Amino acid sequence: MSRKIEVCLTPALIDLYAIEESIVVVIDILRATTSIVYGIDNGATAIIPVAQVEDCLNYQGKDYLLAAERNGEVVAGYDFGNSPFSYTQEKVAGKTIVLTTTNGTKALHLARSRASQVVIGSFLNLKSLCDWLKTQQKDVLLLCAGWKDQFNLEDTLFAGAVVSQLRNNFIHFDDSSVAAEDLYALAKGDLRKYLHKSSHSQRLADLNIEEDVQFCLQVDICEAIPVLIGDELVALKRD
Amino acid sequence: MSRKIEVCLTPALIDLYAIEESIVVVIDILRATTSIVYGIDNGATAIIPVAQVEDCLNYQGKDYLLAAERNGEVVAGYDFGNSPFSYTQEKVAGKTIVLTTTNGTKALHLARSRASQVVIGSFLNLKSLCDWLKTQQKDVLLLCAGWKDQFNLEDTLFAGAVVSQLRNNFIHFDDSSVAAEDLYALAKGDLRKYLHKSSHSQRLADLNIEEDVQFCLQVDICEAIPVLIGDELVALKRD
Repeated sequence: MSRKIEVCLTPALIDLYAIEESIVVVIDILRATTSIVYGIDNGATAIIPVAQVEDCLNYQGKDYLLAAERNGEVVAGYDFGNSPFSYTQEKVAGKTIVLTTTNGTKALHLARSRASQVVIGSFLNLKSLCDWLKTQQKDVLLLCAGWKDQFNLEDTLFAGAVVSQLRNNFIHFDDSSVAAEDLYALAKGDLRKYLHKSSHSQRLADLNIEEDVQFCLQVDICEAIPVLIGDELVALKRD
Repeated sequence: MSRKIEVCLTPALIDLYAIEESIVVVIDILRATTSIVYGIDNGATAIIPVAQVEDCLNYQGKDYLLAAERNGEVVAGYDFGNSPFSYTQEKVAGKTIVLTTTNGTKALHLARSRASQVVIGSFLNLKSLCDWLKTQQKDVLLLCAGWKDQFNLEDTLFAGAVVSQLRNNFIHFDDSSVAAEDLYALAKGDLRKYLHKSSHSQRLADLNIEEDVQFCLQVDICEAIPVLIGDELVALKRD
C-alpha cells in the first residue's frame, strides 16, 4: 500500500480532506493535546472532549473533573483549564475529565464525525505515536488545531516532526507536509527560541504561561497515545 | 503607524482577515498572476478576471482576447489559457483580455468585495511591488491562491519573499508570514529545485509545462503592478 501523509494546517480546511479511511492525529500543542497526553499517561481513566463550556455543566456533580479553557484562561468556576500542570498523577489518576478548549476540542469534534480513527499527538508522545503510526496500514492526516482557525507555528512544527519520522514509511506527501517538515528542521535545535518568533507565543507570554510552554516542548516523556472511543479519549491498547 | 503584514495561505481562510483597510496582494505563481503581470507589463490595456468559464462568453465577438484555464489546461475553444508565453507584447499590447483560471481568479473575486485595494504579485514584479508597498501607509494581506483551496508551496514562497523585503517596514507579522519567510530563505538559492519537492510541481510536470514553471520563477523582470480598478486589472500609475 502506498500510504499518504497530509497536514491540514487549520480546522477550517478539514473538509478538503478525504479522511473516512484515515487516521487523524489532532494537534494542539499549546496546550490541549499536550495536557490530554499527559493526563492519560498519568492514569486518567478517560478525557471527554466537549465543544462548549456549557456542555461541561451536564457532567457537574457526577464525580467528573471539569476543565474549561477559553482564550488561554481557565473559565471561572471550573476545576482547571488546559495547563498540563493540572494533569498530574495525583490529580487525575483514576478520574474522568470533561474538557473544553478554544481550539483543540473543536478540531477533535470536526475529525470524529468522519475519520476512521482519531488519536492525540504532542511532543510528549512523539516517538510513541510515530512508532505506532508506522505499523498501521492507513493514510494519516495531521490536523493542526491552530488558533481560531488560523495557522500557527507550534502545531505545524509538531506536524513536521511527525512527517520527519514517517518519511521512509510513506510515499505521498502534500505541500503542507513538505513545508511543515522543513520548518521543523529549522526549529528543532531550539523549539522555544524558534517560537519566540510566533505571534501566538507573544500572546501566550502575555498570559504568563512560560512554564507551560516549556513543558509542552518536552519530547518523548510519555508513552500513552490517547484514542477516541465513542465520546471518550482513552489510552490506546497496543499488542 | 505600526503596520501589519499577514499571509492568508489559501482563499478558504480569507474570511478570517479584516481587510477593509488593507492592500491585498493576490498570488497565483503557477501561473495566473505571473501571466497577468507579464501581460500588463507588455502593454495589455486591461485584464478582466471572471469567475466562470461561461462568464468569458459574454465578451465573445467584442474584440477581447478570451483566456480560460481549468485544471492546468486551456479550455477548448478559447484563445489561450494562463501560460505566460501567451502574454507577449505582440499578442497582448493594446488588447483587453478576459481571463478565468482555476484558482487565481477565484482569489481575486474573494478579495475584491472587501479589500481597500487589490494588486497582483509574482516573482516577475517582486521588487517593484515591494518598493511600492513600502510607501503605502496600509496593512498588507498576502493572499495565496493555493490549489483548490489547499496550501501550496510556490505561492507561499512568493509571500515569504515579500515578507522578507518588507521586514523592516512593518511591525506586526502573523505566524504564517514567519513560516513563509523562513521557507523562502530555505528555497531562494534554487527555487526550481525546492519546488521539485512539491506535489503541485509533480502535477505540473505531468502537464508538461516545465518551460512555464521556469518562466514563472524569474525575478524582477517586470516593473508593472496590476491593480484592480472596477472590474479591470490595469497598470498601477505611480507618482
